[in-house]
Amino acid sequence: MRQENDQEFGKEQLVKKSDDFAKWYTDVILKSEMADYAPVKGCQVIRPYGYAIWEMVQKALDDIIKKAGVKNAYFPLFIPEKSLQKEKEHVEGFSPELAIVTIGGGGELEEKLVVRPTSETIIYEMYSKWIKSWRDLPVLINQWANVVRWEKRTRLFLRTTEFLWQEGHTVHEKDKEAKAEVDRALAGYAKIYQEYFAIDGVWGRKSETEKFPGAVSTFTYEMLMPDGKALQGCTSHDLGQNFAKPFNISFLGKDGASHFPFQTCWGFSTRSIGALIMAHGDDNGLILPPQLAPIQVIIIPVLQKKDSAKAVEEKTWDIKNDLKAFRVEIDSRKEYSIGWKFNEWELKGVPLRIEIGPKELENKEATLVRRDNGETSKIKLSKLNSEVKKLLDTIQKDLFEKSKNYLKENTKEALSYNEFKKIMENEKGFVKMFWCESAVCETKIKEETKATTRCLPRDAKKENGRCVYCGKPANYKWLFAQAY
Amino acid sequence: MRQENDQEFGKEQLVKKSDDFAKWYTDVILKSEMADYAPVKGCQVIRPYGYAIWEMVQKALDDIIKKAGVKNAYFPLFIPEKSLQKEKEHVEGFSPELAIVTIGGGGELEEKLVVRPTSETIIYEMYSKWIKSWRDLPVLINQWANVVRWEKRTRLFLRTTEFLWQEGHTVHEKDKEAKAEVDRALAGYAKIYQEYFAIDGVWGRKSETEKFPGAVSTFTYEMLMPDGKALQGCTSHDLGQNFAKPFNISFLGKDGASHFPFQTCWGFSTRSIGALIMAHGDDNGLILPPQLAPIQVIIIPVLQKKDSAKAVEEKTWDIKNDLKAFRVEIDSRKEYSIGWKFNEWELKGVPLRIEIGPKELENKEATLVRRDNGETSKIKLSKLNSEVKKLLDTIQKDLFEKSKNYLKENTKEALSYNEFKKIMENEKGFVKMFWCESAVCETKIKEETKATTRCLPRDAKKENGRCVYCGKPANYKWLFAQAY
Repeated sequence: MRQENDQEFGKEQLVKKSDDFAKWYTDVILKSEMADYAPVKGCQVIRPYGYAIWEMVQKALDDIIKKAGVKNAYFPLFIPEKSLQKEKEHVEGFSPELAIVTIGGGGELEEKLVVRPTSETIIYEMYSKWIKSWRDLPVLINQWANVVRWEKRTRLFLRTTEFLWQEGHTVHEKDKEAKAEVDRALAGYAKIYQEYFAIDGVWGRKSETEKFPGAVSTFTYEMLMPDGKALQGCTSHDLGQNFAKPFNISFLGKDGASHFPFQTCWGFSTRSIGALIMAHGDDNGLILPPQLAPIQVIIIPVLQKKDSAKAVEEKTWDIKNDLKAFRVEIDSRKEYSIGWKFNEWELKGVPLRIEIGPKELENKEATLVRRDNGETSKIKLSKLNSEVKKLLDTIQKDLFEKSKNYLKENTKEALSYNEFKKIMENEKGFVKMFWCESAVCETKIKEETKATTRCLPRDAKKENGRCVYCGKPANYKWLFAQAY
Repeated sequence: MRQENDQEFGKEQLVKKSDDFAKWYTDVILKSEMADYAPVKGCQVIRPYGYAIWEMVQKALDDIIKKAGVKNAYFPLFIPEKSLQKEKEHVEGFSPELAIVTIGGGGELEEKLVVRPTSETIIYEMYSKWIKSWRDLPVLINQWANVVRWEKRTRLFLRTTEFLWQEGHTVHEKDKEAKAEVDRALAGYAKIYQEYFAIDGVWGRKSETEKFPGAVSTFTYEMLMPDGKALQGCTSHDLGQNFAKPFNISFLGKDGASHFPFQTCWGFSTRSIGALIMAHGDDNGLILPPQLAPIQVIIIPVLQKKDSAKAVEEKTWDIKNDLKAFRVEIDSRKEYSIGWKFNEWELKGVPLRIEIGPKELENKEATLVRRDNGETSKIKLSKLNSEVKKLLDTIQKDLFEKSKNYLKENTKEALSYNEFKKIMENEKGFVKMFWCESAVCETKIKEETKATTRCLPRDAKKENGRCVYCGKPANYKWLFAQAY
């Protein structure tokens, strides 16, 4: 996607989501002021309206992380090149994406510094120093940070050179404890996606090809976007002892002998906001679930008639005060028309609009309009608070139900490779099919259909099947899709 | 300061704060696990115990910033070299300290990227694009971010190559509004230092030499450390139109003409934690003010007697439950002695220690020990909650009173340059004296005494004096000190 720094975005009609999904996505982000392109290629600015969403995600996720006993810390941005090279698969996986500092304080550096693409290597150097005994375990640490991965093709939120995330890094005495933590982390992410983002997804294990470089296994929450493509929502990795050994993290056990511990890491990034935009938006712009809406209710006074304008405007303040348990704003700007305001707040995806004019004032009521489905209702002012609460809860629930249905309706099973190819050429979506788990078939399928293995769903049952590609025995139906 | 990565820090006696302040400072940080040296020279790891303090500072400051109507956003880490060069003084000020990325995605970059040392230039490029009309003003944006300044001599928290901070950047129609914002920001910082850090300081304006590169004027909160040196706690800058012009930020005014707006910026960093450690700590380690203590109360059960151990340990849980309004931990580890635990939690600066053993259990009371002054009291369990609240409030207040007194006692007036030199050779501290405001005298004084102008205190009165250095007319007594 090219940068469109010079393009102006006024209030003209958005392109339809169904006509040009990619353009709609970019336009809606720029017009709603969620984000903007930065002067450096591939970097973005997260503007206040977008960042407010990220702050709410952070708060909700941070609470979950802290409740699990994990504590926040901060590790450096710069990693010495030699640290990164300690784990072979890891450095091979990240090398093509690195940004490297070679000049510091006016001179060439003796050792080049890598701008962290992820922090395993720097964190595990410290763990190697800090961990001595079983008394030091478990180590449960998380950090909120920026990371940099050089990307050729970038897209706002979904794939940017720099992005924001949290990365948890834990160390355990026993493999069983590490595996429980991998699960715990992913359960937290799934909860965030379901209860805040209102996006249903599939929880499963990545294939050997698709797993994190250096991990024993990688778990994911895969979501389906409206164009039938998959988006990986987050990952949680079982690292086993793969990093402990090269980084020499060892502890004196209760048995008096030295052992390598078991490690996990897990991350959730601003990419999630891309999913939020795509999953719920429509031709009129964003649709934000109430849990993540910076503004949950916009009050728009109808001020056309001069003799009632003052009373109407005053009433909006009463209403805002009555609704102080919610995130409410009033738009009483005189320089914009009512119609312009409706479009503006629809574009910004505010879940609920309250209109109040002379007629409503007289009847002691207000007009409520839902952003998600346009449903309008007249509500007595005396019941406004409870009705707003009920409506916001309903909108949150309805958006998730819609997402669940969409996922269900667009997850198919393919019994043959031909059937699969037809689906990938037409409606796309998630497809479950037998695969023998060989990387050869996986690569061929990717080359021929652009579809990749997304995961082995957690609820997949062991069966006696045959790989749709090579016909060899296959035990599980894996989830395939084209992906972002 | 050299890196001491290989040095082990056990529980041996700390060096005395009065014997070797610099070594005490480093030791107490490493031993209390506030921070550690990173593999990259000049970088540090903020460990969970230190980061928890930063999180509390962030929360308190973020609330103040949001209440002022400022919204958070996020701008990129990388700045194109050409953006940085737009404001002449600014680029000259920061050039020697830059870390520069020259390699990205496996190849040499066409345009080198500066890792932000501060974000004026990248933010103002965006403002130039976003601001068109008086309707777009004021712009009130803040970001929490990491920044990098290449430093020759580094010190944990006080001066590290990478540090964390917030930087606010506002744009106003009128100069008066910008100046009010500069004041508002500094008032917020002063409140944080006084009510959370419990450190008194002097609010004032920096000299022309010491101001921020590119600013019209810079305001600061200067604190005095126990070794008689000053620490600049934060800064708030009046940028006037100095950046608006080169960055071409202009708006169409209500008068239909194009104008340059007035800008401010202001920042508060993890350096503040260095001040916290130095200001309050003693020979036994940290002393944390209750407002910023990750653990406010540590409960230590006396479990020596086997027949009472179970009842005592259970009682600690009742107490913790009773004190759930506070940040409370129980240390019932069997592998450490009571004495070891006392030392450990004193080192970590926990404001209040509760001891409970068989005797206390029998008398339905607990022993409370204040970290700041060692005062011990027996409190009936029925009154514990209210007494803990009272004691924590008192400790917070007492620490601030002590800081106020220290500042007062160590701020002197010098009538002659000789008198000033003697103070700088001996007890140091803050000195108020007439200075003609010429950079020549300022430089000479710095060369001869290592002391710099810290600020013109806000409450300084206009007088008819003579510069202590050159004897020329001087209107104000400026604040001088040696500084970190």
